[in-house]
Amino acid sequence: MVDIATRVWNHKWKIDPIVRSLIDTDFYKLLMCQSIFRNKPDTTVTFSLINRSKHVPLAKLIDEGELREQLDHIRSLSLSRGESTWLRGNTFYGKRQMFRSDFMEWFEGLRLPPYYLERKGDQYELTFEGKWHEVMLWEIPALAVLMELRGRSVLNTMGKFELQVLYARAMTRVWEKIEVLRDIPNLSIADFGTRRRHSYLWQDWCVQAMHEGLGAAFTGTSNCRIAMMRELEAIGTNAHELPMVYAALAEDDAALSQAPYDVLQDWHDEHEGNLRIILPDTFGSKGFLKHAPDWLAGWTGVRIDSGDPATGANIAIDWWKERGEDPSTKRIIFSDGLDVDKITELHAEFAGKVNVSFGWGTLLTNDFRGLVPNDALAPFSLVCKAVSANGRPTVKLSDNPNKAMGPADEIERYKRVFGVGDQVAEEVLV
Amino acid sequence: MVDIATRVWNHKWKIDPIVRSLIDTDFYKLLMCQSIFRNKPDTTVTFSLINRSKHVPLAKLIDEGELREQLDHIRSLSLSRGESTWLRGNTFYGKRQMFRSDFMEWFEGLRLPPYYLERKGDQYELTFEGKWHEVMLWEIPALAVLMELRGRSVLNTMGKFELQVLYARAMTRVWEKIEVLRDIPNLSIADFGTRRRHSYLWQDWCVQAMHEGLGAAFTGTSNCRIAMMRELEAIGTNAHELPMVYAALAEDDAALSQAPYDVLQDWHDEHEGNLRIILPDTFGSKGFLKHAPDWLAGWTGVRIDSGDPATGANIAIDWWKERGEDPSTKRIIFSDGLDVDKITELHAEFAGKVNVSFGWGTLLTNDFRGLVPNDALAPFSLVCKAVSANGRPTVKLSDNPNKAMGPADEIERYKRVFGVGDQVAEEVLV
Repeated sequence: MVDIATRVWNHKWKIDPIVRSLIDTDFYKLLMCQSIFRNKPDTTVTFSLINRSKHVPLAKLIDEGELREQLDHIRSLSLSRGESTWLRGNTFYGKRQMFRSDFMEWFEGLRLPPYYLERKGDQYELTFEGKWHEVMLWEIPALAVLMELRGRSVLNTMGKFELQVLYARAMTRVWEKIEVLRDIPNLSIADFGTRRRHSYLWQDWCVQAMHEGLGAAFTGTSNCRIAMMRELEAIGTNAHELPMVYAALAEDDAALSQAPYDVLQDWHDEHEGNLRIILPDTFGSKGFLKHAPDWLAGWTGVRIDSGDPATGANIAIDWWKERGEDPSTKRIIFSDGLDVDKITELHAEFAGKVNVSFGWGTLLTNDFRGLVPNDALAPFSLVCKAVSANGRPTVKLSDNPNKAMGPADEIERYKRVFGVGDQVAEEVLV
Repeated sequence: MVDIATRVWNHKWKIDPIVRSLIDTDFYKLLMCQSIFRNKPDTTVTFSLINRSKHVPLAKLIDEGELREQLDHIRSLSLSRGESTWLRGNTFYGKRQMFRSDFMEWFEGLRLPPYYLERKGDQYELTFEGKWHEVMLWEIPALAVLMELRGRSVLNTMGKFELQVLYARAMTRVWEKIEVLRDIPNLSIADFGTRRRHSYLWQDWCVQAMHEGLGAAFTGTSNCRIAMMRELEAIGTNAHELPMVYAALAEDDAALSQAPYDVLQDWHDEHEGNLRIILPDTFGSKGFLKHAPDWLAGWTGVRIDSGDPATGANIAIDWWKERGEDPSTKRIIFSDGLDVDKITELHAEFAGKVNVSFGWGTLLTNDFRGLVPNDALAPFSLVCKAVSANGRPTVKLSDNPNKAMGPADEIERYKRVFGVGDQVAEEVLV
């Protein structure tokens, strides 16, 4: 029997909204948002969409009107009562009341600030300006909307059974990956795939398949909405935007060189245990660790997010040893460009030396490579970054020069201040 | 929103019935049933289940109680008003009122006769005795029930996502076959997969995928219920049971040698055009064609259902030439052990010489080979055949001695009467 009410209700939707919840976002955005709300409430930033895959002509694929409808829908969202209850009452990383009352009161009243959208050739310029803690919440939904609208432009032309087989193939692929991962003893892996997912429903499917297929080896998802709905752990710590904005705010070179540590000092005051994870590569991992204060060596682990991951892990291990720390008590989280082979390889190399975890992103939640003609559903490298703070440009060096961003003269200044020499370029796939 | 009524309704089912309609059967069974109803209404037959794949221990896999429930459910079925209307009013092979009023009146009142079930070791003995035109309608639902219950015994142990991936893999496989078939020009192919299908829902999916993927090259399905629901052509002509029973009824060798032609004489009186398809292999194709009356050479085509198919097709082509018929106006239907490679090969070889069609069975609707451990869902060779008529054993020789059946002495007698010499044995997979 058809549920008539459901069918009529569905007809009332003006659009099929891609993002339907303010917590359909990565957990670390909320942790960082609270930190910014507390420590840098007056900072003004600009976030900007950057399509590193110029061969994907987003403005040709995506109708501007449809994009505006989706972004406008996101601006209409506010935290639901159940979501608020979950954020206030749930245990995150073993801790209750991770989100303080003043933050939650502000978040409950939040609507996302305006966006600025303009077509430039075959690409879109999409920027967000305003208070850092408000603007930064646009990053994930903006990326998810663009990724999914681009997907819809391809799916719209397909037949019913062709579509079903497309998803059948994608499901089979995910499951075959899970079957490989299943054989890795003591694996610890989480879903980090929100931002470049194929779609919400697909990410939700992948997360549930990982949960069934891997059991306890699947430690959770970065997506808060899915974590809530599926009663899984919400996973994530912090990201490059914190040191990038702190650095942009620095008044001189001395303050600049100190900025990355100031960020972690604030974090240190707020969090403990598994949330004390260093992301060392914003301005070059080597120099960052070399000049780091000793209290940082006491942190729980390091996340490797650019450059050759084995090299990055060995740098961290050597650094811990130099500082008199036992690497076997530490955690290394790999989160850059992972797929099953790389996960298997890194686990084999490092599992005996440190505690190893994986934050698996795009190739978990968007591996549609080769499944349609012209590879039109292959994931691509789209980011949404803080490009300025209080009117000053931000800079990211990364351990991979292909991931660097910022004005050329500022990049040179940062390289000088942080003592970054030659770097090995790695192809950025996703 | 959950449709509460649907959910409560579903809870009221005592079992999940596998066969839910008397016309969830092959179209040729209904054509033959009408012919028997008209020509041999007093014949008593026994149909018996024969599992040619002894390595599949059906009685260990399938609970006897569950099997009885499913068979009892089939005995509770009767023709619905819509089904009756469809049979009476639809066009089959371009003809209206294919089923005569007296037959339809009888069919509308029909319930299937009792069954006899007994466990013997790891197999079941399942037999049906009674009027030929009643008992013969058990063949397809009995096979479908056993195939699907055997499948359920494997599926019952699988997780939710594991199941979804199983079907994802099977769908992908079917679609990849369709993608190959799509490239064959002027293909003509129908679904003949009811009897050994994985399940009704799966056959229905395969048929719809074929329809979307192949368009007009997909000519229809042998399954009447699916043909009705999906508004497709119902396909099929006649089968071995007609000559087998006619032969068993023959009083002496002279009558025996004439029996296969008597069958087709009755058919000739009833049907024309594309329904005049010769199935020559019951007692050896070569002898059958050699001794056939000339009017049979005027029939539309031949169905090749055992032996090497190319050899069989060439025998038919040579025979038409000998009888002064133009093979290019004739049709050859291949229906034995087909999969994509064989279809491609046979089409390439014969498409220029005759009109070629394919009746694709088990490897369309039940190709789950290699998809679960121990290949526990692989199709196997289960048949349900008329084993005696009016108390006399039936015999089938076929063009493949591995498909022969009947008592040894009767097989020898038939071989003598029909002049069948050495035969090439071919492995029977499905």
